[in-house]
Amino acid sequence: MEKLPELMTAIEISTSGGPEVLIAAERPVPSPGDGELLLKVAFAGVNRPDVIQRKGLYPPPPGASDLPGLEVSGVVVAVGAGVSRELLGTRQCALVSGGGYAEYCIARADVCLPVPAGMDMAQAAALPETLFTVWHNVFERGYAASGETILIHGGTSGIGTMAIKLGKLFDLNVIVTCGSDDKCAAAKAIGADHAINYNSTDFVAEVQTITNGAGVHLVLDMVAGPYVARNLQCLREDGRHVTIAVQGGMIAELNMAYIMSRRLMLTGSTLRPRTKEFKALLAQEISTTVWPMVCDGALRPEMDRIFPLADAAGAHAYMESGTHVGKILLEV
Amino acid sequence: MEKLPELMTAIEISTSGGPEVLIAAERPVPSPGDGELLLKVAFAGVNRPDVIQRKGLYPPPPGASDLPGLEVSGVVVAVGAGVSRELLGTRQCALVSGGGYAEYCIARADVCLPVPAGMDMAQAAALPETLFTVWHNVFERGYAASGETILIHGGTSGIGTMAIKLGKLFDLNVIVTCGSDDKCAAAKAIGADHAINYNSTDFVAEVQTITNGAGVHLVLDMVAGPYVARNLQCLREDGRHVTIAVQGGMIAELNMAYIMSRRLMLTGSTLRPRTKEFKALLAQEISTTVWPMVCDGALRPEMDRIFPLADAAGAHAYMESGTHVGKILLEV
Repeated sequence: MEKLPELMTAIEISTSGGPEVLIAAERPVPSPGDGELLLKVAFAGVNRPDVIQRKGLYPPPPGASDLPGLEVSGVVVAVGAGVSRELLGTRQCALVSGGGYAEYCIARADVCLPVPAGMDMAQAAALPETLFTVWHNVFERGYAASGETILIHGGTSGIGTMAIKLGKLFDLNVIVTCGSDDKCAAAKAIGADHAINYNSTDFVAEVQTITNGAGVHLVLDMVAGPYVARNLQCLREDGRHVTIAVQGGMIAELNMAYIMSRRLMLTGSTLRPRTKEFKALLAQEISTTVWPMVCDGALRPEMDRIFPLADAAGAHAYMESGTHVGKILLEV
Repeated sequence: MEKLPELMTAIEISTSGGPEVLIAAERPVPSPGDGELLLKVAFAGVNRPDVIQRKGLYPPPPGASDLPGLEVSGVVVAVGAGVSRELLGTRQCALVSGGGYAEYCIARADVCLPVPAGMDMAQAAALPETLFTVWHNVFERGYAASGETILIHGGTSGIGTMAIKLGKLFDLNVIVTCGSDDKCAAAKAIGADHAINYNSTDFVAEVQTITNGAGVHLVLDMVAGPYVARNLQCLREDGRHVTIAVQGGMIAELNMAYIMSRRLMLTGSTLRPRTKEFKALLAQEISTTVWPMVCDGALRPEMDRIFPLADAAGAHAYMESGTHVGKILLEV
């Protein structure tokens, strides 16, 4: 192994604010502790929670790095206690609790997934956050089952494109909403069965038309606020509603009698604050259920654009412009 | 068998309104169809949905009797096609989709539960509605598990007293709310581990005190409205909230970010409009999980007062006065 440097370049959130607060800085290269390994980062994924953290609205959970970045790909260059040295030199991608925007990043060994031969490292870095989020919320929390219909808001976001792809691989009928006809076309090209332009169409009425009045089994909601009551109107009896972001506002006004009479279920989750034990279990489940589809090429993330690490600010500004389709990455 | 009369006395809802609209009338004795049997009614339970129906706010589902009454005990005096004649003459209690306030009532054979020897028929009539409701919502829909803590509003209502008893039989830690110190004492005498007078105490703060800040795993909510947000404050992470009535109003304002960050689950249900197939499955489950406890005497309904059928109006007025503890029955 090459000798590790003492210092590395990382992108700090110098203060809460716009993209310009993301500034390159020197940090000590971290040392892996029990159950951890150190990745020499190849690519880091850019995610909406990074933007919210940058704005000062989503502080890192206790014990997590203050640096942004929740997913990386890289080569293992050091291992901590209890981690097999056979992992040294292997290509891995991982969900991390922060610190991805850096030349080196700590990951829990039991949350890493091996990058298959033939898959490029940019694609690998684009997988963990959306894959873990969609798998847990759609299939575990939302009980999506083969043959069911799902409504996904934000169909061309990183989460949305992963939800379309996983939905189709697991035999769901996928309806998405997007903000323009171009994005609707992009979502359909990615695999969505139906795409609704929410700026030109009432999505509640359109879902009823598409489903012949039956409604959908599941809504993956990242809007919340006034969308929630409208989402519930899209659900069939016994339908489920899973919230993973509140981009439209936190407060929803709900009719509990409607929830009772149609036996609806509402839930939601966040990923970053979960325990390491939970994330390890989720990685283990994904390694048996989804990773074979990554290994055989059936599942690839939808890639939009790659920025150099030094231009993390540009990547954030681009994400906030809302024009991307799929994942935005940083190349280290 | 005695020959059946052609006419019977039943209590009709003559028009929507107060208890006085409940008027005795002559009706034809109904004939059991496929899978049905006819009970000569001994007692009929009085339930909150009967009151709401009387007010014109809860119309009978399609195909159901327009007569009030959702649970009865009685002797089988006729059977329809596909029902064993061996049931003739046996004592049964049943959840019915209406028509319980009458001398004779139709029930689905596969929803009947046999009244054990030694149990009186008044108690038997007091079981089905609360037992089916609590079992489904607390254990099936709310996933209550041994050792968990449940918060039950309306601790001295028919539902509340059944929830206390089932909760203790299935090893839950039971916290209830009631509207007076006397009712709190009654709820504790019935088995509640803790009872909170919601008129003199902030139940949210009190639940945190009782649980040492941990919160409860499950709320059985029959208030809805502004209680929902407060109930969610009582839940621990991954807690569940099941609404079965909206006595405090239908509209709840919820913070979806709070639901996400604590991974809460909200659902609810109504019983009367469910399919006969669902009710039969539920009866079958209850016959194996709970009925043995009825047969051996471990579970008995909490009985308040019995009115003659002719005084159904008095029974309703009494229920609406809110002074009862446990079940109100009509004797036929």
